[in-house]
Amino acid sequence: MSKYWSELAKKIEPYVPGEQPKDRKYIKLNTNENPYPPSPRVIDAINRLANESLRLYPDPNCDDLRDTIALYHRLHRSQVFVGNGSDEVLAFAFMAFFDPDKTILFPDITYSFYPVYAELFNLKHRTVPLSDDFDIIAGDYAGENGGIIIANPNAPTAKQIDKEAIIKIIESNLNSVVIIDEAYVDFGGESVIQLINDYPNLLVVQTLSKSRSLAGMRLGFALGHQDLIQALDRIKNSFNSYTLDRLAIGAAVEAFKDEEYFRETCLKVVNTRERISGVLKEMGFKLTDSKANFIFASHPKIKARDLFSGLREKGILVRYFNKPRIDNYLRITIGTDEEMDCMVEALKLLLESNLGDSAK
Amino acid sequence: MSKYWSELAKKIEPYVPGEQPKDRKYIKLNTNENPYPPSPRVIDAINRLANESLRLYPDPNCDDLRDTIALYHRLHRSQVFVGNGSDEVLAFAFMAFFDPDKTILFPDITYSFYPVYAELFNLKHRTVPLSDDFDIIAGDYAGENGGIIIANPNAPTAKQIDKEAIIKIIESNLNSVVIIDEAYVDFGGESVIQLINDYPNLLVVQTLSKSRSLAGMRLGFALGHQDLIQALDRIKNSFNSYTLDRLAIGAAVEAFKDEEYFRETCLKVVNTRERISGVLKEMGFKLTDSKANFIFASHPKIKARDLFSGLREKGILVRYFNKPRIDNYLRITIGTDEEMDCMVEALKLLLESNLGDSAK
Repeated sequence: MSKYWSELAKKIEPYVPGEQPKDRKYIKLNTNENPYPPSPRVIDAINRLANESLRLYPDPNCDDLRDTIALYHRLHRSQVFVGNGSDEVLAFAFMAFFDPDKTILFPDITYSFYPVYAELFNLKHRTVPLSDDFDIIAGDYAGENGGIIIANPNAPTAKQIDKEAIIKIIESNLNSVVIIDEAYVDFGGESVIQLINDYPNLLVVQTLSKSRSLAGMRLGFALGHQDLIQALDRIKNSFNSYTLDRLAIGAAVEAFKDEEYFRETCLKVVNTRERISGVLKEMGFKLTDSKANFIFASHPKIKARDLFSGLREKGILVRYFNKPRIDNYLRITIGTDEEMDCMVEALKLLLESNLGDSAK
Repeated sequence: MSKYWSELAKKIEPYVPGEQPKDRKYIKLNTNENPYPPSPRVIDAINRLANESLRLYPDPNCDDLRDTIALYHRLHRSQVFVGNGSDEVLAFAFMAFFDPDKTILFPDITYSFYPVYAELFNLKHRTVPLSDDFDIIAGDYAGENGGIIIANPNAPTAKQIDKEAIIKIIESNLNSVVIIDEAYVDFGGESVIQLINDYPNLLVVQTLSKSRSLAGMRLGFALGHQDLIQALDRIKNSFNSYTLDRLAIGAAVEAFKDEEYFRETCLKVVNTRERISGVLKEMGFKLTDSKANFIFASHPKIKARDLFSGLREKGILVRYFNKPRIDNYLRITIGTDEEMDCMVEALKLLLESNLGDSAK
């Protein structure tokens, strides 16, 4: 800490992303990346756009991309905001819709960036406990509040909240903005995008990092009533006029145009998830019902922390959260079938050696 | 405005970047872009990196790029912060070093994003008048304050403040952070980067948008004592873990490795600036002594606003600011020699017709 730091810089507790170690080659199942490459059309577009026009600023309004997303979801450009990853979109949304003197709500177990944003923007917040089964209880999100944010499917639990419950939350909060963060929705979840036409207080946030294999290009977007989008534009234009570079814009446009590739890739991930979930259950793991590109697993006899360390020693990275209620779970990203088979074999060895030890 | 907007979204007055019209082809001399393409090495790097690894998150710490910049400027990685354009770097710096209860200072005529950041982050600010000749007077930046930001060369005046004056400002403010925004320094200005080794309260911000022809890739950086860089990291990691995509990182690394191309390109811009400055002076224009990739010009007989509109009708975009003290000036980006000759010809026609009219 230094005397030159602002009070804000002193007080915040930054988000810690999944590790990206460089010491050796790992099977990376820790940051929910897609195991399959982006569409070949995306690569072609980048090669086509990598030319002298990079000397020019990008379109600050990203109209082409917004039109593409609008067309894809049968909306209008004015209902679409785009940003540098859904994290940036979420940061702008916290600034655009939440006020420091009103308390915002989010689940006690959810994407751990939400409390970081709340601190960063000096927002009061209250966490609402999930049920014992990690379900969101819609009735708990009623009463005076300054806004709500819910991830659906939720992270790291992977569980879905159904559309009726979301409608109930939106309708109980017509005076505040409800943000539904659908980062993982394309792996079997049900999107509420079309509800933005009915509810002016609903903002849906999605990303191209997961289902469109573009984590490396930093692309996210928000959909909502044009009044909400306008507020996001105002914040963004007071922060950074050009948040998306020319190649990112072009890559995103093409990603939305290759629907067949998108569907195939998502299906492969879902199929692997279902197969591996079955295998892990046979090994004694307890799993939530995942609608995401990761699973959330706990073993009744061996501590998650030990499994995490054991896998890491074997060159396999998964995510472990040392937090109340979930400190005996592993969040395991769905990789290729080969990667997942390696992970299962490693887990089998760890179970054998650990259960063997405890039996001695 | 909507009831869902935060108080912040309601009160801010977003920055307005130079127009990017799509109605026809213009000679674009309005956003200080470089007329020459980025280094061929940059294009090669992008083509090489456009592969399946885009499915993976970039390095959140951008170590390769920070090492490259550190080596280039004979610094250590811990003294380098990188971001999505220097605008994002500046936004983070305002959050990291300035507090709402202390008044920050900047010139009355300067980059018009500074007051926007001050509003966005709820910071008190006081503008310090430039001299009648648009010079920064170092002695005016003394006394209690919460931080200082100065563009050098200044925008849109294009004038340089000399190193002794900057040292005086830094030494008069050892309890607050002084940010020197050197977006345009590579076109003949004198950088104060090496002073960061002597002054722990100095942050120098630069961009790859201008001198390295990469406005389309969104790349900026800050250099300072490691304590300052750490504060920027804390803010960034509370906002968006991955602000630079894989291609932007790779492009920036290569841009710093092609020193010869960089020097040649800057020299061409400077030579064109000097030649055109002479021509405009002969035509009666009053020009500031530019050390940037633009000139700041006023004509004693014809209003800048009329010249701006006249040029626009002829397909040439320049920048006009309808603001006190500078509302009779044009900011004209240095384009290629051909573009500048077209601009001069257009101005000659406008002068003839206007002066002809007034003589009638």
